[in-house]
Amino acid sequence: MQVLELNLNTLWVALAAALVFFMQAGFALLESGMSRAKNAVNVMMKNYMDVCLGSLIYWLLGYGIMFGENLSGFIGLSHFALTDVAAWDYSLLLFQMMFAATAVTICSGAMAERTKYDAYLLAACGITAFIYPVFGSWAWGGLYGGHGWLAELGFIDFAGSTVVHSVGAWCALAGVIILGPRTGRFSREDGSAREIPGHNLSLVALGGFILWLGWFGFNGGSTLAASADIGLILLNTQLAAAAGAVGALLFCRATRQPVLLTSTINGSLAGLVGVTAGCATMTPEFAALTGLIAGAIAVYGSRWLQRRRLDDVVGAIPVHGFAGAWGTLAAGVFVRDDLFNWGQLTVQMVGVLSAFLWAFPTALLLFFLIDRLLGLRASTQHEQQGLDYTEHDEVGYPEFHQHVTFHKES
Amino acid sequence: MQVLELNLNTLWVALAAALVFFMQAGFALLESGMSRAKNAVNVMMKNYMDVCLGSLIYWLLGYGIMFGENLSGFIGLSHFALTDVAAWDYSLLLFQMMFAATAVTICSGAMAERTKYDAYLLAACGITAFIYPVFGSWAWGGLYGGHGWLAELGFIDFAGSTVVHSVGAWCALAGVIILGPRTGRFSREDGSAREIPGHNLSLVALGGFILWLGWFGFNGGSTLAASADIGLILLNTQLAAAAGAVGALLFCRATRQPVLLTSTINGSLAGLVGVTAGCATMTPEFAALTGLIAGAIAVYGSRWLQRRRLDDVVGAIPVHGFAGAWGTLAAGVFVRDDLFNWGQLTVQMVGVLSAFLWAFPTALLLFFLIDRLLGLRASTQHEQQGLDYTEHDEVGYPEFHQHVTFHKES
Amino acid sequence: MQVLELNLNTLWVALAAALVFFMQAGFALLESGMSRAKNAVNVMMKNYMDVCLGSLIYWLLGYGIMFGENLSGFIGLSHFALTDVAAWDYSLLLFQMMFAATAVTICSGAMAERTKYDAYLLAACGITAFIYPVFGSWAWGGLYGGHGWLAELGFIDFAGSTVVHSVGAWCALAGVIILGPRTGRFSREDGSAREIPGHNLSLVALGGFILWLGWFGFNGGSTLAASADIGLILLNTQLAAAAGAVGALLFCRATRQPVLLTSTINGSLAGLVGVTAGCATMTPEFAALTGLIAGAIAVYGSRWLQRRRLDDVVGAIPVHGFAGAWGTLAAGVFVRDDLFNWGQLTVQMVGVLSAFLWAFPTALLLFFLIDRLLGLRASTQHEQQGLDYTEHDEVGYPEFHQHVTFHKES
Repeated sequence: MQVLELNLNTLWVALAAALVFFMQAGFALLESGMSRAKNAVNVMMKNYMDVCLGSLIYWLLGYGIMFGENLSGFIGLSHFALTDVAAWDYSLLLFQMMFAATAVTICSGAMAERTKYDAYLLAACGITAFIYPVFGSWAWGGLYGGHGWLAELGFIDFAGSTVVHSVGAWCALAGVIILGPRTGRFSREDGSAREIPGHNLSLVALGGFILWLGWFGFNGGSTLAASADIGLILLNTQLAAAAGAVGALLFCRATRQPVLLTSTINGSLAGLVGVTAGCATMTPEFAALTGLIAGAIAVYGSRWLQRRRLDDVVGAIPVHGFAGAWGTLAAGVFVRDDLFNWGQLTVQMVGVLSAFLWAFPTALLLFFLIDRLLGLRASTQHEQQGLDYTEHDEVGYPEFHQHVTFHKES
Repeated sequence: MQVLELNLNTLWVALAAALVFFMQAGFALLESGMSRAKNAVNVMMKNYMDVCLGSLIYWLLGYGIMFGENLSGFIGLSHFALTDVAAWDYSLLLFQMMFAATAVTICSGAMAERTKYDAYLLAACGITAFIYPVFGSWAWGGLYGGHGWLAELGFIDFAGSTVVHSVGAWCALAGVIILGPRTGRFSREDGSAREIPGHNLSLVALGGFILWLGWFGFNGGSTLAASADIGLILLNTQLAAAAGAVGALLFCRATRQPVLLTSTINGSLAGLVGVTAGCATMTPEFAALTGLIAGAIAVYGSRWLQRRRLDDVVGAIPVHGFAGAWGTLAAGVFVRDDLFNWGQLTVQMVGVLSAFLWAFPTALLLFFLIDRLLGLRASTQHEQQGLDYTEHDEVGYPEFHQHVTFHKES
Repeated sequence: MQVLELNLNTLWVALAAALVFFMQAGFALLESGMSRAKNAVNVMMKNYMDVCLGSLIYWLLGYGIMFGENLSGFIGLSHFALTDVAAWDYSLLLFQMMFAATAVTICSGAMAERTKYDAYLLAACGITAFIYPVFGSWAWGGLYGGHGWLAELGFIDFAGSTVVHSVGAWCALAGVIILGPRTGRFSREDGSAREIPGHNLSLVALGGFILWLGWFGFNGGSTLAASADIGLILLNTQLAAAAGAVGALLFCRATRQPVLLTSTINGSLAGLVGVTAGCATMTPEFAALTGLIAGAIAVYGSRWLQRRRLDDVVGAIPVHGFAGAWGTLAAGVFVRDDLFNWGQLTVQMVGVLSAFLWAFPTALLLFFLIDRLLGLRASTQHEQQGLDYTEHDEVGYPEFHQHVTFHKES
């Protein structure tokens, strides 16, 4: 490879990493806007610190587990605390570091407004250091020798519908189950759901725009090279996001529910999650179709979780988990040069299932242990006062009168 | 062209498209901040959904009309629903898709706080599918054969002062005329204007910063190649934006009016719109001059519209329309190697005029038809309650006490 | 150099400039969020207009002083109002223009909530036109002939820990001294500090994310070429930022103080400032160490200033000044191929000291003269009413009830 090409690839992957970094701001705004004002500082602190801790830990441990020499196919065991390697490896580490942070942040949103701050940070470290990179080593591992066993099977997950998004969502599901719902989220009498409106929908929308922007780096950078494929990849990303919002809109209208801002934005994010696996191998019309269905799935999945009294504050599990699983299957059957190859579908199912079977139980165990060690859930009194006051000694908007948070019957 | 060069061009245009995408967040914040809190959700939903619908429709229809084979010079008729083409075409479609979304969003801001949501979305579809790409085919068309008639004449509009910004603004003007002003905007007795202050000027400023950032992609990407010209183009973009704010400031001071934040930011945006046509062919001092005058035009134009009782909530028509027309003329006379060529000025005038004569009447017709079909304007009662409550079943800031919106005599 | 390489370098530097531009939005949000709502418009206007004025002045004057022919080693004297040069020079000017804006904006944050608007703008012009570029000519000058004297000594300051950040901070220190603290910041009786909480910590966090993002352009673009080094540089940037937040956290916990959101974010920014000098020459573990210590320094420095009754609203002086000095020293001793070279440390000390000895007294003089000419500080009455109302005829959030700002004993 000529020098200029190497330079260009290194530059592009580093720049894409910067875009993926910015997704953290998107996640933070989305979660903050969907939470109550009394937890605004807590949400920002979780999202800010999980990038900080996650970056350091992924450098020290996670990258080696995920991409290090992988003779067993099940775990990498070299290249920890990367130093004195080629510039290209640094660039790749940076890019993958941002992916790890993404996976973790997905949990933050689902578990908002009731998780102890220290307990959350500890969980974030556990996911970055172990749960996420181990599964990553199965699907993408073996960069420095060996092969991940899912990669060997021919599993297609270009930029991580399953590797990043579903794994994050299954960890979130475990957290939500161990935590239980927010006080007041479900009626004590009949278990019916009560909406707890987020405090700032403008921030939610801004978060959605920023995530969408960052996704161009997420999917585009996954080429790991300044390849011309980036044209198709980014177009597919755009069409799937657009179709995801439309899918959510159509599903809401078809089921005679109001088309909420949060549903619309989650629909577009589900479209993005859905196309992440197949954005490099689908033609645009299938990317749009994948996104359209992903958007509907996100809305349906949200209601499904709610009926089971699982309290996912931002809808992270349907958006990243359910739409991620759908997108991974779609990536197997909507392959440009090999449409409807049902053999590939089987491989995709194995990948989707193994992600769940790995991440969900290990995350359950992690949250269970943290709960024993530190207590995972804030006390009801702290929850009612707001975590900003009880955990951070600060309030987000000290000059503005706030209502006591109200619960509206949905 | 060698492979690396093609890859680099594809990458740059796709990346520039991502920056232009982010302008949608800027438009949304600007419009939201200049509107009242009771319409915050409505503003975000319009801006979010017009990108979503617009992207799909531009892919299916608009791109083919704008860039398809154009034998008549007046409309393109091929390459609809692009699929199975070269990576480069995908990249270009993505970039142009973002431009179409920009043109549409300009209407949203002018028509804020009183337009029915469904009616707006329908209008957005009409503009993306037809009004915008038809004019585009005149000035930029013929990529796949044939030539646009304005292109044939030698019309200079590098990145779209007229093609994108003025066309969007003339559509907005049509919408504003059909809609009429917001209730309370002009006194019933003497017709004098009353200021309706926006609910969040911090969001307005953030929107301004984001638009300015996105414009580097808007103008820089219009090279359609990773050319060294990008140095000059981005510098001109920066200087014109800076000078635009200064122009607004000087004009306000000269006319003894307070230098409002909204005027300042609109001044810089007018500078950006103004330099968009000529950023690749002007030297920096003329770029700064173009921006300076554009900033003054935006402030003057805002007052001019107000005196005519046209209620443009964000000042979109002066910023994108008047400053766009000025910038297109400036692009004809401030050409680096051909200063003050008055023949070119005639061509520029033809372009500016034909944009108005095409976009304004067709948009009038479109809004008139939508008004007949669905009703364009929300009822006065809905307007007073706020569109968030009446059209979206959500409120933007449920925890914060809000004043009843007050009207301050200007 | 082949054409493609030149194009790529021009493109990268221009794109990095766009990222650095976006840092202005980060600074604006950070300062706004840490200030009271009654000054929200003023903060935004300062940050918006200093880029506008700064860009024009740096083009006309600053660039020539900083990079023009520098025969004395102390000042450049050519290439003013750059026009008709090669595309590459335009790109470089754009990039450096954004750096100048960064240096100035640092002052804005420290001097918030009590500085007259016109006086601030005048000071911003003075710093951009003279104080900043003169020091710049010592360390980075001589691009068009000659050499800066610090460059001759072998001073290492890759992207400007000292040249940009410390110089900005020492100007800020001068401003803070001449201004005096905000009314109510220190008790009249015993001089003890009272916290004045910022009005919107969500904006502070968003500002932090945006600054972090922009820093990838700030440090990465300082290669001035699309070099593979960008992998290492951006990784070091990321690790130092992450470690900076951890350093702040550990320092707060060690001194049994609450870990505030503002301390955490300032910690990460201090990490970024710290690694700016040495990001191209350190290995990742030393980058992380540099950041970790910088984060602790920022928190300690903030308390140190407070004890001296210096009122730096956003902590700009410890973050950009103290951490910048530390980072410049660290860049001398943590050199990848030349660890712990104490001779280099001496050179670094000379650079750090000369920055202080140049910028601090000249800025003192500048602020003193402006104070004589226009008055630097707003009247107590204006300060209490809020500068938005008294200086800008606008309020930031007209629809929201606001408390009278309260002072909490710290």
